[in-house]
Amino acid sequence: MAVYTEVSDDDLAAFVASYGLGGLLSYKGIAEGVENTNYVVHTEKGPFFLTLYEKRVAPDDLPFFLGLLEHLSAAGITCPTPVHDAEGRMLRTLAGRPAALVTFLEGVWLRRPQPRHCQAVGEALARLHLAGRGYRRRRTNALGPAGWRPLFQRFQSRADEIAPALAATIAEELDTLDAQWPSGLEQGIIHADLFPDNVFFLRDELSALIDFYFACNDALSYDIAITLNAWCFEADHAFNFAKGSALLKGYQSVRPLAPAELAALPLLARGAALRFLLTRAYDWLHTSNDALVSPKDPIEYLRRLKFHRGVRSASEYGLGNGA
Amino acid sequence: MAVYTEVSDDDLAAFVASYGLGGLLSYKGIAEGVENTNYVVHTEKGPFFLTLYEKRVAPDDLPFFLGLLEHLSAAGITCPTPVHDAEGRMLRTLAGRPAALVTFLEGVWLRRPQPRHCQAVGEALARLHLAGRGYRRRRTNALGPAGWRPLFQRFQSRADEIAPALAATIAEELDTLDAQWPSGLEQGIIHADLFPDNVFFLRDELSALIDFYFACNDALSYDIAITLNAWCFEADHAFNFAKGSALLKGYQSVRPLAPAELAALPLLARGAALRFLLTRAYDWLHTSNDALVSPKDPIEYLRRLKFHRGVRSASEYGLGNGA
Repeated sequence: MAVYTEVSDDDLAAFVASYGLGGLLSYKGIAEGVENTNYVVHTEKGPFFLTLYEKRVAPDDLPFFLGLLEHLSAAGITCPTPVHDAEGRMLRTLAGRPAALVTFLEGVWLRRPQPRHCQAVGEALARLHLAGRGYRRRRTNALGPAGWRPLFQRFQSRADEIAPALAATIAEELDTLDAQWPSGLEQGIIHADLFPDNVFFLRDELSALIDFYFACNDALSYDIAITLNAWCFEADHAFNFAKGSALLKGYQSVRPLAPAELAALPLLARGAALRFLLTRAYDWLHTSNDALVSPKDPIEYLRRLKFHRGVRSASEYGLGNGA
Repeated sequence: MAVYTEVSDDDLAAFVASYGLGGLLSYKGIAEGVENTNYVVHTEKGPFFLTLYEKRVAPDDLPFFLGLLEHLSAAGITCPTPVHDAEGRMLRTLAGRPAALVTFLEGVWLRRPQPRHCQAVGEALARLHLAGRGYRRRRTNALGPAGWRPLFQRFQSRADEIAPALAATIAEELDTLDAQWPSGLEQGIIHADLFPDNVFFLRDELSALIDFYFACNDALSYDIAITLNAWCFEADHAFNFAKGSALLKGYQSVRPLAPAELAALPLLARGAALRFLLTRAYDWLHTSNDALVSPKDPIEYLRRLKFHRGVRSASEYGLGNGA
């Protein structure tokens, strides 16, 4: 949570003026957002959201992300929509950073989601997958299976500082997933990071999906596995069957899963848990004490990984229970 | 710049519901604000500003501050106006902190104010002083002359870590000010912290004054001295005569200064520079490396203090130059 790049009033007023949104009324740097600097900007045409992209976002990926938001908005998904400036550009430069102005979306993310919210998230994820069809740009999943082993090698020697035998556990899991990772599953645009803080609700209805800066092309069912990990475990790391069941039911009500996707779900869920275990472990070992952002606990995802290892079929996630 | 206290969606929705402002639409923790936690809250009735008071604000002072904002708003000053809940309360508790909801004010603070802005600030400060008349609650200036020596004693032994002979300079200045500090100047409500980031402009017009959490009863002309220090020096710490002249001209166009106030101005300006030198020096020596907020440079105010020591009369600040 931080503002990494300060923008001056003169620079922002000139920037906003080029969009035809009337005058700049106010702007506030907001504390949310780990990767980028974000401002809520009020103009005479209403509120907007300004993002300055910091070093963790590759500038070459920005046309993919901004184009995707525009494509999804046109396909009926409520997500931030990039505003074009007078010259038609979505991507600009401000205070030396790549920058984009997008629509401001009302809504609140849920600190304690209930099963009904998980069902709504499942539905929204499936709608997102359908809406992604036809998007022409492509982005490889940098944090997909091919990226896990190189990432692990960057902290393998220190992994056991986090938990006893963590290095061995990860090495073994990587071998299993390398050998068994499913192929032939339906591919498409995935969000890849649909955690509760990226889903807004208004009056108990899902109102928007945000933060598409991990979106990429990968197996759609792998996105379900990520979302299952993100939404369906309790604070004590126990799987919540009612939430898993609701999420899968919601998803299937929009896009029924193929038999191969159902069969692969336990393995995909292991992979998704490993992916977050790896990035969190890396961040845990590489965050300085005076960082503005506290690293998230990697152990949560070790616990999830161990749970998924014991799962024999998708029915244990709630499929068949009305899903 | 930080959110010190996280508020959950459920707690905030319940809090907002008690104000009769319609449903909660969104809330974002904002990065501005050193002392407190602030959120921009959108409700069905529009945007509001939520403050959770952190430890540097004494809870006993809150009725003074909130009452003052209400008094000043009623007297025509554009400043945050506390909203009353259904039971008539301005001061509430949220997430274990004293909390208040106030009106959201559009405007942008100026990173590079020009003389015309200094004139507007002078006018606004004088209007604020007139509007403060009749406010019945009182608050002693904890950072007035009586507070300077005790504050200095808390870091005197380490002062020279900041600049050579700083301890001796401050001790000598305290003796001079103790001996010569003027009495009998008109007293009233002062803002006491009217820096550029506490003044909003919209389309080059001053639109609002904010952040009254240092407001107190003291000499009105001492508030001018603070504002002169805050607005009329350049990045190289040189006094800008055009800005000083404009600020004083603006002030006097609303509330002409008495002869005793004019005569006292150089000494008041020394006191004001010392006050910020003292608090910044203390913070400089007592901020841990992993703090969320970087301490401000105390040397800026040592430079100002040395300038004011050489000033013989208020004309050197621009009085007489049309002011």
